Amino acid sequence: MEMKKVILSEDEIPRKWYNILADIKMNPPLGPDGNPIGPEALAPVFPMNLIEQEVSSERWIDIPEEVLRVLSIWRPSPLVRAFALEKALDTPARIYYKNESVSPPGSHKPNTAVPQAYYNKVFGIERITTETGAGQWGSALAFACSQFGLECKVFMVRVSFDQKPYRKSMMEAWGGKCVPSPSMETKAGRDILEKDPDTPGSLGIAISEAIEAAVSDETGKTRYSLGSVLNHVMLHQTIIGLEAKKQLEKIGEYPDIIIGCAGGGSNFAGLAFPFVYDKINGKEIDIYPVEPVACPTMTMAPFVYDHGDTAKYTPLLPMYSLGHAFVPPPFHAGGLRYHGMAPTVSQLITEGILEPKGVTQLAAFEAGVTFTRTEGIIPAPETNHALATVFDEARKAKEEGKEKVILFNFSGHGLIDLAAYDNYFSGGLKNYVLTQEEMLNSEKVFKDHPKPQLLKSR
Amino acid sequence: MEMKKVILSEDEIPRKWYNILADIKMNPPLGPDGNPIGPEALAPVFPMNLIEQEVSSERWIDIPEEVLRVLSIWRPSPLVRAFALEKALDTPARIYYKNESVSPPGSHKPNTAVPQAYYNKVFGIERITTETGAGQWGSALAFACSQFGLECKVFMVRVSFDQKPYRKSMMEAWGGKCVPSPSMETKAGRDILEKDPDTPGSLGIAISEAIEAAVSDETGKTRYSLGSVLNHVMLHQTIIGLEAKKQLEKIGEYPDIIIGCAGGGSNFAGLAFPFVYDKINGKEIDIYPVEPVACPTMTMAPFVYDHGDTAKYTPLLPMYSLGHAFVPPPFHAGGLRYHGMAPTVSQLITEGILEPKGVTQLAAFEAGVTFTRTEGIIPAPETNHALATVFDEARKAKEEGKEKVILFNFSGHGLIDLAAYDNYFSGGLKNYVLTQEEMLNSEKVFKDHPKPQLLKSR
Repeated sequence: MEMKKVILSEDEIPRKWYNILADIKMNPPLGPDGNPIGPEALAPVFPMNLIEQEVSSERWIDIPEEVLRVLSIWRPSPLVRAFALEKALDTPARIYYKNESVSPPGSHKPNTAVPQAYYNKVFGIERITTETGAGQWGSALAFACSQFGLECKVFMVRVSFDQKPYRKSMMEAWGGKCVPSPSMETKAGRDILEKDPDTPGSLGIAISEAIEAAVSDETGKTRYSLGSVLNHVMLHQTIIGLEAKKQLEKIGEYPDIIIGCAGGGSNFAGLAFPFVYDKINGKEIDIYPVEPVACPTMTMAPFVYDHGDTAKYTPLLPMYSLGHAFVPPPFHAGGLRYHGMAPTVSQLITEGILEPKGVTQLAAFEAGVTFTRTEGIIPAPETNHALATVFDEARKAKEEGKEKVILFNFSGHGLIDLAAYDNYFSGGLKNYVLTQEEMLNSEKVFKDHPKPQLLKSR
Repeated sequence: MEMKKVILSEDEIPRKWYNILADIKMNPPLGPDGNPIGPEALAPVFPMNLIEQEVSSERWIDIPEEVLRVLSIWRPSPLVRAFALEKALDTPARIYYKNESVSPPGSHKPNTAVPQAYYNKVFGIERITTETGAGQWGSALAFACSQFGLECKVFMVRVSFDQKPYRKSMMEAWGGKCVPSPSMETKAGRDILEKDPDTPGSLGIAISEAIEAAVSDETGKTRYSLGSVLNHVMLHQTIIGLEAKKQLEKIGEYPDIIIGCAGGGSNFAGLAFPFVYDKINGKEIDIYPVEPVACPTMTMAPFVYDHGDTAKYTPLLPMYSLGHAFVPPPFHAGGLRYHGMAPTVSQLITEGILEPKGVTQLAAFEAGVTFTRTEGIIPAPETNHALATVFDEARKAKEEGKEKVILFNFSGHGLIDLAAYDNYFSGGLKNYVLTQEEMLNSEKVFKDHPKPQLLKSR
């Protein structure tokens, strides 16, 4: 019997994270006056030990023992050969996936939630605030906080809060608190509710609320935590790709193509960055971040300086952005409904090292159902977007008769997102495409910025 | 860092199941006339290759390659040392759990669903019917059928069907069909609905419907599948205990105490039977199946011949039973709401080899929440019952100052059962205790049997 999984033992978990900042040159974040900010500007929001990671350019950063202890609840995660899927697609490609759905909350998110909770604890912080869209990040942070005895407060985008009551239950099971956003607890929330009491909310609004709740705590014992976009988040996620490299080495394989879905960029970067290092050093690999065509940050938006949140509490970050006021259409992949993209991922796109792809919601779910009925695991709606591109590449390999090695990130399972599958099976799911007018409206916000901020036009 | 998990590689998956029938003497099943039945009596219900396993007394039975291929999607499952839980309970006991929640549907159930689907396929069957309570079994069978290209039809107890819409979605994702029971599709269902249109349904009724739907298919291409109770189901589940033995050997441990929750008995038997073999051969081990006090089959019911279903379609089986018409109170562990107990488990209880325990719902959830906030994984409500007894034994070890080795089965995660946790956190959960009157009523059904069938009174 051919082995399906490549398994590492606990003592093979990587001991260091890979920091892409050692290998690329980035534009600095800017303050409200348009000038570069220093680390101290972030101190009210994040603990200083995490800020140091955010700006570090050391290539390898040690993973603390206490973090490894918690990661070992589910890590190393399996690398799996998708034999049944290959057969169904009748492709000569060999398809591997890194199964990040095996964590307790069911996704890759705890890879960064755990170290973030740890560094906050070490810094003397007692309470962390955050936002969550679909709920994967909020439940991951609640899980991580329970491991280090921290309080956790989650602002959850209202439309998801109402559609996914089980996500709140998960957070509560781990001892976290979850409120729908916009809420009356913050000025940012109250301002929005006053204008539009029935707003479905957005990730940008929820981030504003969570930051405000952290910085306004006068005891100084509260900080904010972000589940994607920032450099230290990408850093923590590289454990995925570092493990995958070891696993592929064990069976003498190396990928031709790497694929991951990208909302803020973290699961994609986690798998891809250790291979980006190889590509920078001469390896030939095609690396594809995948987004929904209904939120086309990487494939259609300009590369600009923009805020990470609606209320403009964050610094200006150099990234592809649809504008911080952009509210994407209500497709079923909450984790991909974000206006921006991680600055590191954005930078690598401008340099041509990454080639973004866009897929439709229906193509994503079609691929997800085929995966469910072949490989046996029900993917999260976000993961389905990566799958749609895997299918495209597997078919291309067939047309070209090439034995390509495809590696993708199975970022999460869909057991808490089954309503989306119901909707798909009942024919209620449709494709959203952004109109030119919506694109133009979304770009208008950049005009408010302190300086002309277009880094690169399309 | 101490290693938390003991991991086996795929080529260490056991190649044979352990059959307890080689080592205990059983009372035979009886037909409606009160006489022992032969294998041929079961032929309309099950394929003959599975019936042969049901009656086999060979100690070791080969696991087919095609079954191993599918099991390897998630097996071998991890054996985990519960360091954080030990610390929280301040116990000298070393606590290990076999994590069966890592399968795609989230429980131990696919361990038997996969071989059952396989043997049906090999026998030329095209469609399998079954019942499900909480939904774990129905989704496991839908998953298994999708792997072998079989149709799957699930009759789901109505109260669960209404409370847990996501279970139906899971079955559909794998291509299965799920209807609430009682339904109008069978005579058994119509009879019940005529008397009581608002019945919440029961596992006994759903079994009757699924059997009727199988045997009444005139093409002869449909069979029925049961997720617990029967000998071949226990056989397939022994892969759990056989793996656990290998894993404990690797670290030089052997259990003093084995614990599993028991509804029909299959996850418990799967972990325990390979160790029961050792106990029969002289090892000293305490082995505890755990049930809810609200459905006290093992701890209060008589050892009798009784039917497995409400409509009396099944043969009379020798087991502890609350009576085939018994409807348990609506506590939150659907998998433990069954009137009977596997004949093999029942037999071992009468011989004093197993010592059943009963726990309350609130004690179960209290233990489950502590586990969630220490070990990090949210348990299924059924699994919480095993945990309550683990907690009792860990505390006893502390009082006695003994370094006991406790092994329990983490039979499933609770991600689809979060409504139960909501209920617990909001204070809505209560304990049910069966009254003497309810016990007497439940026993009356035995009077209808063709012979006096009391095998052993209490």
